[in-house]
Amino acid sequence: MSDIQADRIARLIAPLRVPARAKLCPGQYDPGYTGGLHRHRDGTDLLERGVALLTDYQSRLAAQNIHGVLVVLQALDAAGKDGTIRHVMSGVNPQGVHVHSFKVPSPEELDHDFLWRYAQRLPGRGEIAIFNRSHYEEVLVVRVHPENLDRQRLPAESRRGDLWRRRFRAINAWERHLAGNGFRIVKLFLNVSKEEQRKRLLERIDRPDKNWKFSAADVAERQHWDAYQDAYADMLSHTSTPWAPWYVIPADHKWFARIAAAAVIADTLIDIDPRYPAVDRDGRQELLRFKSALDAESPGARHPRRAR
Amino acid sequence: MSDIQADRIARLIAPLRVPARAKLCPGQYDPGYTGGLHRHRDGTDLLERGVALLTDYQSRLAAQNIHGVLVVLQALDAAGKDGTIRHVMSGVNPQGVHVHSFKVPSPEELDHDFLWRYAQRLPGRGEIAIFNRSHYEEVLVVRVHPENLDRQRLPAESRRGDLWRRRFRAINAWERHLAGNGFRIVKLFLNVSKEEQRKRLLERIDRPDKNWKFSAADVAERQHWDAYQDAYADMLSHTSTPWAPWYVIPADHKWFARIAAAAVIADTLIDIDPRYPAVDRDGRQELLRFKSALDAESPGARHPRRAR
Repeated sequence: MSDIQADRIARLIAPLRVPARAKLCPGQYDPGYTGGLHRHRDGTDLLERGVALLTDYQSRLAAQNIHGVLVVLQALDAAGKDGTIRHVMSGVNPQGVHVHSFKVPSPEELDHDFLWRYAQRLPGRGEIAIFNRSHYEEVLVVRVHPENLDRQRLPAESRRGDLWRRRFRAINAWERHLAGNGFRIVKLFLNVSKEEQRKRLLERIDRPDKNWKFSAADVAERQHWDAYQDAYADMLSHTSTPWAPWYVIPADHKWFARIAAAAVIADTLIDIDPRYPAVDRDGRQELLRFKSALDAESPGARHPRRAR
Repeated sequence: MSDIQADRIARLIAPLRVPARAKLCPGQYDPGYTGGLHRHRDGTDLLERGVALLTDYQSRLAAQNIHGVLVVLQALDAAGKDGTIRHVMSGVNPQGVHVHSFKVPSPEELDHDFLWRYAQRLPGRGEIAIFNRSHYEEVLVVRVHPENLDRQRLPAESRRGDLWRRRFRAINAWERHLAGNGFRIVKLFLNVSKEEQRKRLLERIDRPDKNWKFSAADVAERQHWDAYQDAYADMLSHTSTPWAPWYVIPADHKWFARIAAAAVIADTLIDIDPRYPAVDRDGRQELLRFKSALDAESPGARHPRRAR
């Protein structure tokens, strides 16, 4: 890992980071941005290098076993969440990576506070967890469709006043607590344009091998496009913090979205800079004692009893 | 996926499969077996093809969402469990693969029956779960070190008579129940020789970058080599069933162990033969209605409000 490479990654992602306390408008970020890169010249090469870097750092993160990393992925339908996970995280040792997709909440989950089910899927030390959708759905789909809120059985006092502002505050405090205990959080919003989403939904209809991916619900949700854009802008404005920043990943070009996502995760790991644990002098002495014991084993003892 | 390829995989793994009701002796399988393959001629190529095959099948397994696959990995220390997982499962979409390493049981886990904590980590439909160590530790480490059994707070009647035979029966019944509900189970015993284990433990001492992997407990466990060989032979003899077979993977040559492990998992997926869900005539009509709606969107509606 050279400083030049780290610097290049930092420069690539800087324009995508949402400043803390920004006041964003819907549509402020360009879904077609490609950071001056070119698909054919840079597309494959940069992604491969990014994945190799993630693979190396994940192995050290697991060995050090002090920090954990939570990657939050949010997007509208057909923005490319699944493909991003597949292309960015395939190749990384699955032993240290957990991907969790949150589905419609169960009755037991609805019987708890709105962060409860997400807390149960947090990464442990040494692990990377990816939330494919996340606790941010609690201020997105729940806000666009308030009937979801009714199902959460909140007491009347919890619904009074500015509930969304309170949820932003609760999320920020929770993430700060996690950050203060060694867990790094990065949040990626895959930002697709309405026209590109239309093309991708049509493709799912036109290609028989993609039909099974098509969901009528996705088209229905599209009717709420503007409400979602507003909810996303408000969420990004209130929950991008120094300890858990949001990055808006331009998602109209899949090849660039994957490079950008890999770069954000790599930047986080570079910043943690995990090291393989070193052995101190006492530990070294102990190792040498075990070495003598293993060296001294008689040839007869080296083979299992009754071996052929 | 050609029939020839499927047939080649079946022939490669057939000699590794433990027949149901076999009566095995310790050391009966050769840890140095390589099935007539040659490292330089076959090593990389076959593993790459195996991983590509797993990647394709995993994607269909997830789309079909009917079957789940549990892969059990058992071995003595330094047999190569972690490396096998890394080399065989890296490249497969981590969204559909969960690896779980079982550590020393917690007090809460000890307060339940001996299968309880493993049941909580089973794969869901469409998923592949890998148990890095598993419920089989309950008839291996617990048998070699009976003080572990004392910690399980069993009532006196549960300890009378042949407790291990009863555990084998309970495990077989549990796995049969899972198989009967759509979950396929394959079990891999990575079989390393005592001399190869000695070399690998010495390597962890000699190479500073591998020191952190060295555990004094591994050398201590080596004193119980024969007791473990006996426990493994008895376990393999009693728990290789038509619905959840054991394969003894020769582990002295890492390159062959990885090919063999990939082949066993691939064979299981080939047998399931998952398909992408097809859309029926009614579904097709519905898709076409959505297509018309998407096609008919006015250009004005195609762009987000207030976009740049």
